[in-house]
Amino acid sequence: MQKPLPAKGTQDFESLQIYKRNYILDVIKKNFTRYGYFPLETPSFEKTSTLLGKYGDEGERLIFKILKSGNFLKGLNSAELDFEDLSGLGNKICDKALKYDLTVPFARYVSQNFNELIFPFKRSQIQNVWRADKPQKGRFREFLQCDADVIGSKSLMQEIEFIYLFDNVFNDLNLNGCIIKLNNRKLLLGLCEILECQDKFSILVNQLDKLDKLESSKIKDNLKIKGFSSAQVDSIFDLISKTKNLSSNMDFFKKFYEKSSIGVQGLSELEFIFNHFSKQKLLISNLVFDISLARGIDYYTGVIFEVVQKDKSFGSIAGGGRYDNLTEIFGLNETSGIGISFGLDRIFLTLDELKLFPEFKSKMVKVLFTNFGTDYYEDIIKFTNALRNADIIADFYPDSIPLKKQLKYANQKEIPFVILYGEEERKSKFLKLKNMKSGNEKELSLDQIISKFKKTVIL
Amino acid sequence: MQKPLPAKGTQDFESLQIYKRNYILDVIKKNFTRYGYFPLETPSFEKTSTLLGKYGDEGERLIFKILKSGNFLKGLNSAELDFEDLSGLGNKICDKALKYDLTVPFARYVSQNFNELIFPFKRSQIQNVWRADKPQKGRFREFLQCDADVIGSKSLMQEIEFIYLFDNVFNDLNLNGCIIKLNNRKLLLGLCEILECQDKFSILVNQLDKLDKLESSKIKDNLKIKGFSSAQVDSIFDLISKTKNLSSNMDFFKKFYEKSSIGVQGLSELEFIFNHFSKQKLLISNLVFDISLARGIDYYTGVIFEVVQKDKSFGSIAGGGRYDNLTEIFGLNETSGIGISFGLDRIFLTLDELKLFPEFKSKMVKVLFTNFGTDYYEDIIKFTNALRNADIIADFYPDSIPLKKQLKYANQKEIPFVILYGEEERKSKFLKLKNMKSGNEKELSLDQIISKFKKTVIL
Repeated sequence: MQKPLPAKGTQDFESLQIYKRNYILDVIKKNFTRYGYFPLETPSFEKTSTLLGKYGDEGERLIFKILKSGNFLKGLNSAELDFEDLSGLGNKICDKALKYDLTVPFARYVSQNFNELIFPFKRSQIQNVWRADKPQKGRFREFLQCDADVIGSKSLMQEIEFIYLFDNVFNDLNLNGCIIKLNNRKLLLGLCEILECQDKFSILVNQLDKLDKLESSKIKDNLKIKGFSSAQVDSIFDLISKTKNLSSNMDFFKKFYEKSSIGVQGLSELEFIFNHFSKQKLLISNLVFDISLARGIDYYTGVIFEVVQKDKSFGSIAGGGRYDNLTEIFGLNETSGIGISFGLDRIFLTLDELKLFPEFKSKMVKVLFTNFGTDYYEDIIKFTNALRNADIIADFYPDSIPLKKQLKYANQKEIPFVILYGEEERKSKFLKLKNMKSGNEKELSLDQIISKFKKTVIL
Repeated sequence: MQKPLPAKGTQDFESLQIYKRNYILDVIKKNFTRYGYFPLETPSFEKTSTLLGKYGDEGERLIFKILKSGNFLKGLNSAELDFEDLSGLGNKICDKALKYDLTVPFARYVSQNFNELIFPFKRSQIQNVWRADKPQKGRFREFLQCDADVIGSKSLMQEIEFIYLFDNVFNDLNLNGCIIKLNNRKLLLGLCEILECQDKFSILVNQLDKLDKLESSKIKDNLKIKGFSSAQVDSIFDLISKTKNLSSNMDFFKKFYEKSSIGVQGLSELEFIFNHFSKQKLLISNLVFDISLARGIDYYTGVIFEVVQKDKSFGSIAGGGRYDNLTEIFGLNETSGIGISFGLDRIFLTLDELKLFPEFKSKMVKVLFTNFGTDYYEDIIKFTNALRNADIIADFYPDSIPLKKQLKYANQKEIPFVILYGEEERKSKFLKLKNMKSGNEKELSLDQIISKFKKTVIL
C-alpha cells in the first residue's frame, strides 16, 4: 500500500516546529499589542461574493473555491451549465471560498460592524490563508499571515508607525539585513498618466511584481506583448534605474512627475516619510525607495511596503500598503485603511537558515513509570497523577512488555528518569528512581520524587 | 448597499472573545502537556482520498469539498459527467476537502511517518475542523477541536488516563456538573450479534446517536422503518433502560451478553475501568455508564466517551473513543489508537452561561498622545515609541482634528490617560498628562511618564 501523503503544497508541523513558530509569533503578538493592535479572527471561508473582484485576475485564479453542500447543481438549467466558461461555472457551483488574505475579510468585518466600531479602528489578525499557487521553497498553499491594519485615517503617521513596527519585530528576532522597500502606487499611476497608458495600469503592476522572479528583459518583452510601446517601456525602465535613492534623485523625480497631480502627491507622501527617517534611525532595518515595487494585489492605492532579507531569497518576509477604496466596495466611504502582513513560513525559513533560533528543547516527559503488569496499574496511575498534578510531565508505559523494551522506549524518547515499581517497592512503599544516563538508582518516597522534580523541571 | 455578512454557520471573534477562548485553551494545553501529549498540526485540507470512507454516510455528506484549481473538468469525458450521481461527480471535480475531524488526518500522519515515530505515540492537536452541518446554538460549520490521541497500545490504562484528563480540564475550569458517559462499541456490536442483525450495526449506531436530539419513540419508529423488527427494537430499549448503573445491573448484562464473545469482551473492559474508579475518585466529574451512547463516527471500535454538562444542553462538550482499525486503512496493522476531543465553542458557551469566566479586561491602550498638527508628528512618534519600547501600550491620535473630538475618542476607547503636547510643552520639554476620569492634569517629563506607567500598567 502506498504511503498516504498530505495534499500538495501543504505541510504537517511537529512539536519542535510548533515551538519555534510560537517563538516568532510571540514576538509579533507582543509588538502588535504594544502598538495597540488587538486581535480579531474571521472565519476560514467567506462567501465568494465577498472575495471575488478584490485581488485582480491573478489572485482570482488562485482562490480555492468550496463546492456547495448537497445538490450543487440545484437551480442551474442546462444553459447555465456552460462548460466553456469554467470560472463562471465554478462560481455557480461554489458559494464559498477559502480566504486569500486577511485584509478583505477584515474589510467585510469593518463594513458589517461599522456602527459599533470606533474609528480609527486598529486590529491584528493571525490566521491561515490559502492560495492555489505553485508550491516552492517557502511558498505553501496554506500559510499563516500575521496582519495589523488600521482603518479610518489617511494620516501618514500610520505609514511611519508600520515601518517602526516592522523594525521592532525584526529587531526582537535579531534578524539583521532586513530591507524595508517603500513605494507609492500613486507613482505608478502617475507614470501611466504621463505615458498615457492608464488603461494598462494593472498590466504594469502585474509585470513589475514579477521583477524579483524574472529577468528584466523578459518583463520588457512581456510589456511589449501586452501592448506597451518601446518608448513607453524605455521610460519605465529609465525611471526604475533612478530608484533606490530617492533623496539624491528627488529633482529628477519632481521634474518627471510635474505634469501628473497624482504623481506629485505620491512623491510628496514618500518625501514626508523619508524625511522623518532621515532624522530618526531604525534599530536594525534599512529603509529604501524602490519605484519598481508594485505588490500583486489590486486594492492598494497609496504607499506600499515589502520587506526582504538580503542574504536569503525566499521572497518577501513581510509586506503591506494603503488601500483607500476597499471598504467602499462594501458600501462605506471615507474609510481609508492601511495594513501590513508578516509571512510566518518565510521568516521561519530565514531564521532557520541563518541559525537565529534560540536553543529550543522540545518539551519532554521528565519521568516514566515502567509497567510490571495489571496488578500495579492502580498505583502507577495514582502516582503518575500525583506528579502531573504537581505540574511535572510524567507518563507510564501502558503495557507490561519486558523491562528492557520499556527502557529502550525511554531512551528513544530521551526520557531522563524512569521509576521501577514492582512487588518489592509496593511492600516498602519506596519507588526506585533510575537515572537513564548514569544508570544510578535511588529508593525514594513519592513525595521525595515530587519535590526532586519540582525543584528542577516543571511544566 | 446590503451589509456584507460572514458565510453561514461561521463567526468572527473579537479581542475579548479571543482572550476568553485562550483562557480555556491554556487550561487544555497545560493538561495536554503534563500528560505528555505534545503538539502536532496538520493542514486544513487533505486529499479527498484520505478523508472519504472514514466517517460513515452522514459524515461523508457533511465534508466540505474544494474545487480543483484551473480546469476542474479536465480529463472528464461526457460519460463521466454524470449529473445523476452528484456525490460521485463532486469527487471527480474536487480532489481536496476540508478536514472533518483531527483524527483521520492524524492517522494519515502516523501512517506516513510510521518508521520515524516511537510507539506508543502520543500527540495533541488544537485546530479547526469543518462540517456542513445545520448551524444552531453551539454548533458552527467551522469550529476548533482540541484533541489528544495515543496510537500503538491496547492497554486500558489509556482509557483511564483520558478520563482523568477530562476531569483535570473541567476541574481547572471550575466546571461543575460534568458527566463523563462511557460505553463500548463492542456492546453495541454484541447486541447486534445477539439480535442477529449485524448488517444493521451502522444504522443502529446512527439512530442511537440521535437519542439526545429526538424522542425515543421517533428513534423506535426509525429503526423499524430501517428494517428492525418490533422484537429487536424492544430488546434494544429494554437494554437501554437498564443502563446508567453498570455495577447494580452487572448480572443482567453478563447474562444478556454471555452468548456474544465480543459483548463479553466489551463488558469486561468496562468493568475494569469502573472498578478502578470505584476506588479512585474524580475531582469534579461524574463517570456513568450509558449503553445508548453510540457516537456518530464510523471508526470507533472499543470504549467510547462523551461529556455533557448537566445544566446546559449545547450537546456534548467533549468526546472520544478507541479505534482499532483506523491506521490499518492506511496500510498499518496492530496500531490501535484512542483519542479524545474537547469542543471549544461549546465549553465557551457553557462557561459563559454559567458565568464561570474569570474577570477579563480586554487589553487596552494605556495612554494616548493627542495630535496638534504635523509640526509635532516627529516628537509624538518618538515619545510613543519610547513608551512602547518600555512595553507600555501607547498610541497617538493620527489626525489633528479638534481636541474635543480626540478626547471623545479616548473616552469611547476607555483610554485612561492622554498626553497633551503642543507649543508650550515643546518649549518646556514637559508633557501634560491628563487623567481622563478625574480630569486632573500633571506636567511630567517623558521619563517620569514612563516610570509612572511601568509601575502600574505594563503589557
